[in-house]
Amino acid sequence: MSRLDSGIRRLLAQKHALEDAATRISRLSGCVMEFGLGNGRTYDHLREILPDRQIYVFDRQIAVHPDCEPPADRMFLGDLFETLPQAVSRLAGQAAMIHLDIGTGDKDASVTLVARAAPDLVRLLKTGGVVVSDQPVDHPSLAPLELPKGVKPGRIHMAVRL
Amino acid sequence: MSRLDSGIRRLLAQKHALEDAATRISRLSGCVMEFGLGNGRTYDHLREILPDRQIYVFDRQIAVHPDCEPPADRMFLGDLFETLPQAVSRLAGQAAMIHLDIGTGDKDASVTLVARAAPDLVRLLKTGGVVVSDQPVDHPSLAPLELPKGVKPGRIHMAVRL
Repeated sequence: MSRLDSGIRRLLAQKHALEDAATRISRLSGCVMEFGLGNGRTYDHLREILPDRQIYVFDRQIAVHPDCEPPADRMFLGDLFETLPQAVSRLAGQAAMIHLDIGTGDKDASVTLVARAAPDLVRLLKTGGVVVSDQPVDHPSLAPLELPKGVKPGRIHMAVRL
Repeated sequence: MSRLDSGIRRLLAQKHALEDAATRISRLSGCVMEFGLGNGRTYDHLREILPDRQIYVFDRQIAVHPDCEPPADRMFLGDLFETLPQAVSRLAGQAAMIHLDIGTGDKDASVTLVARAAPDLVRLLKTGGVVVSDQPVDHPSLAPLELPKGVKPGRIHMAVRL
């Protein structure tokens, strides 16, 4: 499969998974967190499909299109393992959805990163909260969810906080 | 429309336009030229759908994934208005397809860039050769082509060399 086809499927998987997660949390109050703001594409989609939720974003630095820049008081900028504990101290148990898009292209490094972040991610989630992630997030308090129709397993991952 | 939806439609428009152009040139011999290699996504797609064509690429520098790096003797690296005349001197009238993806985000600058490049692009094309472009290419020797079904006008542009 060409990188163009692969890019299309990746973006479609993100779209369908985020929209599925938004439906799943429709009766759950709480904020949304995006780890890996990047160019702001999925952040822009999240604020479109969840206009009434507070959305917090996490990234090393802002590299986003100016139209997609989140409010300053909802950004956690810097090393993930410094900002994540700060977020836990402010927002533990308050996230209805977490979107994780922090894969680095280096498979082993990405797996290590997610494994190290998993306990704090779980602390941030409400019971019933949903994780959408480019990498699988393994934790005893997370149960994998079936992906929406048309999304190939492995392309994206969804789980619910037990 | 969110930037995620817009990104999906942009990549789908590229895919459908390139595949349509590949069909249109199926009885025309000649090489393919890609202006704006970027991360190599559409180059990778072109070499997948046109495995028997020589594909020349043009960009300021190589920023491509190593898997998508073109052979050194088919790359024109540097300022477009230095490489374009070099290409004309070597390959005038030999291109069956040109893919132009050189929009800079600055609309006016992109329009100026394409207008300045148009005469040399036309010199590179064979009669019947097809241009696929992120910007309209206006030239008396180019006639606009209808876009493939499902691609919204304005999202991408196609023309044939008269």
